[in-house]
Order: sequence, then structure tokens, then C-alpha cells
Amino acid sequence: MLTIDIIKAKQLKDKPDPNNLGFGNYFTDHMFVMDYQEGMGWHNPRVKPYEDLHLDPSAVVFHYGQEMFEGLKAYRRQDGEINLFRPDMNGKRLNNTNDRICMPQIPVEDFVQAVRTLVHTDASWVPEEAGTSLYIRPFVIATEPTLMVNPSKSYLFMIILSPVGAYYKEGLNPVRIYVEDTYVRASKGGVGEAKTGGSYGASMIAQKNAKNEGFAQVLWLDAIEHRYVEEVGTMNIFFKIRGKVYTPALSGSILPGITRDSVISLLKSWDIPIYEERISMDTIIEASKNGDLEEVFGTGTAAVISPVGGIHFKGLDFVVHNNEIGPITRRIYDTLTGMQYGNVKDDFGWIETIEDKNDHGWL
Amino acid sequence: MLTIDIIKAKQLKDKPDPNNLGFGNYFTDHMFVMDYQEGMGWHNPRVKPYEDLHLDPSAVVFHYGQEMFEGLKAYRRQDGEINLFRPDMNGKRLNNTNDRICMPQIPVEDFVQAVRTLVHTDASWVPEEAGTSLYIRPFVIATEPTLMVNPSKSYLFMIILSPVGAYYKEGLNPVRIYVEDTYVRASKGGVGEAKTGGSYGASMIAQKNAKNEGFAQVLWLDAIEHRYVEEVGTMNIFFKIRGKVYTPALSGSILPGITRDSVISLLKSWDIPIYEERISMDTIIEASKNGDLEEVFGTGTAAVISPVGGIHFKGLDFVVHNNEIGPITRRIYDTLTGMQYGNVKDDFGWIETIEDKNDHGWL
Repeated sequence: MLTIDIIKAKQLKDKPDPNNLGFGNYFTDHMFVMDYQEGMGWHNPRVKPYEDLHLDPSAVVFHYGQEMFEGLKAYRRQDGEINLFRPDMNGKRLNNTNDRICMPQIPVEDFVQAVRTLVHTDASWVPEEAGTSLYIRPFVIATEPTLMVNPSKSYLFMIILSPVGAYYKEGLNPVRIYVEDTYVRASKGGVGEAKTGGSYGASMIAQKNAKNEGFAQVLWLDAIEHRYVEEVGTMNIFFKIRGKVYTPALSGSILPGITRDSVISLLKSWDIPIYEERISMDTIIEASKNGDLEEVFGTGTAAVISPVGGIHFKGLDFVVHNNEIGPITRRIYDTLTGMQYGNVKDDFGWIETIEDKNDHGWL
Repeated sequence: MLTIDIIKAKQLKDKPDPNNLGFGNYFTDHMFVMDYQEGMGWHNPRVKPYEDLHLDPSAVVFHYGQEMFEGLKAYRRQDGEINLFRPDMNGKRLNNTNDRICMPQIPVEDFVQAVRTLVHTDASWVPEEAGTSLYIRPFVIATEPTLMVNPSKSYLFMIILSPVGAYYKEGLNPVRIYVEDTYVRASKGGVGEAKTGGSYGASMIAQKNAKNEGFAQVLWLDAIEHRYVEEVGTMNIFFKIRGKVYTPALSGSILPGITRDSVISLLKSWDIPIYEERISMDTIIEASKNGDLEEVFGTGTAAVISPVGGIHFKGLDFVVHNNEIGPITRRIYDTLTGMQYGNVKDDFGWIETIEDKNDHGWL
């Protein structure tokens, strides 16, 4: 259990228009910070006013990308309380990432406590409009001032908060995706299953090229044969073929998404067959040609579910489910978002609630 | 041609002991900074006192690893002037990296001018002791305050300087290296040929494991078959087998080292056969067993040349050249460092000199 100092901001910010938030554009009044120093461990956990970081230009994070992040959301319920969705899973994944890139562990209960404390402090920033939420961004950066290519001896663990708009302003519309067969997101033995910054910077060029060609997302293939499906954009991907659902197995190069894990549990609870295995593009294309490719969707914290209506592969276009959202896709979306906003009963123990008796609402 | 403002530090730092510098521990009095903003391009180039950066916690560099760096050195000649070694090559490579990770180009002549101006300003920091030099670290970081996974709309291009000690304090001794067959540095379609931070953070775990086992460096293999040699630590690698020298071809996953390029040119000028091709570990092991593996060495800016005396692969140890530095390794080292310090004639046009008439010396 951390003893967290809370230093309140003297002046609170004006809040932005809750109907025009976008994603990651606005930040709340406070942030969480905890320091790490070799020999001392993690210390000085505190909530303080949101402000610039002051770092030496030689800090390891600027040169060798020793950094990681997590992402989750706080949801405003109709009764005014605030829900979190499986924050312990983010804490566990954070530690898996930290192991991979040689950063120190953070106890999961401390992680969750830090999230809860910061969200409680800035509870008035959890928006109420349909589909909006407060995005929570925990991250760790290496701060030692040295140019040695070694794990840093000091770190900052921080959490910042950003109120975000509805992902689907005009409803849950399917998107067209581009199958990338030149650039690679991750390879076995690399950092694809860790949530570290470098993978995202490296992926920007493919995403930019796809957008220029009119596609919403890139579908990543494996690094070795450029044949097996990995992820879509920054989401995991699911295919429904003749009543069965398939998603790529966690082979070492795929991010273990928390929404992915939740979707698998939901499908099992509904007795819908779900398989985690290697999926080749040949299988997908053949299923599409035979009329067996019934639904395709991405899963991630930002969008929850992103239905795919078209796949572009080696110059050919394959339409999925007549470019309409499928019934399983819709059911998963309604169930997960229903749980998150407190309108659907949670039988899985996924929801944690933060009381906000005092001043809920966008003041 | 940039118009660079020079804002001098009011108080200069005490200089460290030049016989105990290490690598990347001390920084000089000034740094170079230039801003980029979408729509304005690069602007406000300036030399200013070395000081902390102030960045929003949501700056893209902290989350998505959109960052790159370069490395080169300034060498004190016996006549008091200062040499740079092929700084234009660093500028060209910077732009190749920037293309890959969606950052804006910097004209090579502006890059070189910025390097020269900063080194000239802090000329008194170029040490004189044998083997010491002033390490130059140009880097670019993404600064836009947003959590969108898109190329940043703003950047900082910076250069910082660090006086560094002799890499080989006790002479040019061969090291033992560990052939890594689990972790992967880079794959085709990835960012291995770009000098971006994420690759270095991702490599730390293998390097740490190798050090714990008593090895100086990791020898990286290809991502697909884990069979072909790629790099050693953060250096390129060369093998001399029966009088011929081999180095892995630039296949897309290998960093195009400037020392690598210089070594190839030197060998050609000496009529020593040099081949850039795919090299399998089988070839290396077979040559070692037959007594044909005559010399192995790494090349990079920090060490210039690092002789390899032993290779550990799948539980077996292979000794190279009786664990002694080979004649070609020695000749390359002496020639390159001789040119860099101004004691060997440069027939290649690699050396640029910076006048230091006023106040050279470690004051």
C-alpha cells in the first residue's frame, strides 16, 4: 500500500467541449508521479499538478527508447460513480513489458492504487456524454543522464489522464484495412508482446501509407513468412468463419490485449467456438471467396471493437459481410461497453468502481 | 546555411579529470537546439547553455519512441586543431533514419554546420590525453503533446557533447562474444537499418544476460533463421577467413556503420579482398574448426575497432587467433585512429578540421 502525497493544483483548467474531445488532446489538472533510483527502489509516490517534465537532454529515454506505456479508461456510470475495467490486467502487462526492456517491476496493487487515486482526484474530468470516457495513460521512462547503452539506474512512473470522445461518432461503421507485406511490426525474439514505444514509432510509416491510400488500418503479417496474421493497427484481430471465431495465438510477437482476453472469455461464456491459433492470409482469402468469412473485427482499449468491412491484399479487395457490422461483433461491443458504463451486469469480476459522491459532473 | 544564435553560458562548469572520463558521463557547457513545427519547418537554430529540457508529459517521444540519434567524435590533434571524421555521413544516415520513422529531413550541410558550430563553441572540452575525444551526440525527438499514434507535428533537433576516455585503457585487448539465438535485434521490414532508440532499449536484455555470463558483447543473428550473422552489440562485424575479409551485407536489418564503410574502403585500398554478403554461423564455426578463422573484429564509432578473441555459440567456445589481436585488425585500428588524430595522412577526404586558435586545452 503506497502512501501517496496529494498536492492539489492551485488553479484548475477550463474544461473543453465534451462533444468535441477527440483522443489524447486534453489533459486533466493532475498527474501521478513516482521515482525510482537504483538502491532505493520506487519512492515518493505523489499526485501533483499536471506540468512539464524537466529532464536532462542525455536522459536514456531520449536516446535508447527505454520506455513503456499502458492504456485503460474510466467510465461514468448513470448513477454518477466511475468504473474501471480490469486495471489489474494493465498492471500485470506493465510488469511483463518492464521485464523485457530491463525496467523495474511495480507491484500490481500499487499500480491499481495509483490509478484509482489519480482518477478520484480528477473525478470531475470523467465526462458524461454517451461514448465518452477518461483515458488513463500510465507510462515509465528511463531518466538516468548517461549515453551508455545500459539499463537506466533511474526511472519515472507516471500516469496522465485525458478525457476522450466517442470513438464512433457516427455509429459503429466497418472500416477497410490494408494488409502490409513490406514493413513488419514485430518478430519473435523482438518486443512485439511488450508495450514499448519503439514498436509504435516504427509502425507509423505503414499506417501513414495505408491512410494515404484510403485505408483506416494496417493488418500486420508475421516477420518470417509475411503470411500469418498478427494484429490490425494497434489492435488485436478476430475472424468469424462458418460460425467459429479465430484470433492469432500469442506467439511472442503479438500484444496480449486486455480487450482480446475479455472477448475470448465472453465468446466462451456464450458457447461460441473460439480458437487461438496461427491464421494464414490464404485461409482468410479462401474463406472470403467461398462466402465463409462472416465477420472480422479488431479489439483494443480505444475503440473496444472495430468492425472490418473490407480487406486489401496484394492489389485485391475482399468485402466482409457486405460491409455491414455482424451480429457477434455487435453483441460483443454492446456487452463490453454495457459492462464498462455499468448498464450490463458483470459476471466476470472485471469492473472496479470508484466512488464519486462529492463532485461528479463536468464542472 | 543556418544563422545560428549563440547564447553563451554565464558560468562555465568545472571540467572532470581527463584521465577518468568513461563514456557519456559528463556534458559540456553548451548544446545545440533547433525547433520544428509542421507548417514552419525547422527554425530557431541556436547554441545555448546545457540545461534540462522542459517537455509536456504527453510528448510523443515518451510514449511512441519517435526518436533517433547519431554519434560521432571530435579529436584533438597535436597541433591543437580539432578533427571531425566524415560528419556528412552522419547527416545522410540521420535523414535515412528520419524517413523510416516519419520525422522531417534536415539538410546535411545544416547538420554539419550545427556540429561544427557547437564543437567550436565548446572547443576547450576536446581533451588532449591519448585516446580521449569529444563524443558528439545529435538526436531528434518528437515533442507534440498528444496521445494519437501519428507522426508528431513538432520536433527538437539537438546536439550534446561529452568528453570521453580512451576506449581501451589497457590496450586493444580481444573480447569474448556470446551468439544470441533467442532475442532478435531487428528483422527485415523493421527498423534495424535506422538509428532509432527502440532498437537499443529492446537489445538491453540480451546484452545484460551476456554480461552476466562473462561476455563483453552479443553477436546478433537474423530474425528468420537465427543462423546468419548481423551485428555485434552496437557494432558491425568483420571476419577474416583464409586471407579474405567478410562482413554481413546491408540487407535492411543491419545498421550502415560509418566505421564499417571506412574499413571496407581501407581494405580495398590495400588490395585485401573484402566481401559484403550473407554469412552463416555454420561457415564461421567450420572456419574456426579448420583453423581458417584468422581474425574477427567489430567496428563502431565508440571503439573504432574491437577485436574478438572468442565466440560462444550454443554452449561451445571457439577461440579466434589464439585470443590475440590480428595484424589486419591492428593495421585498421592504427590507420583510422591515426587519421582521426591527424597523425596519418588522409587520402580519402574523410577528415574535416575545426580551427581552435583561441583557447584550446583543458582549462
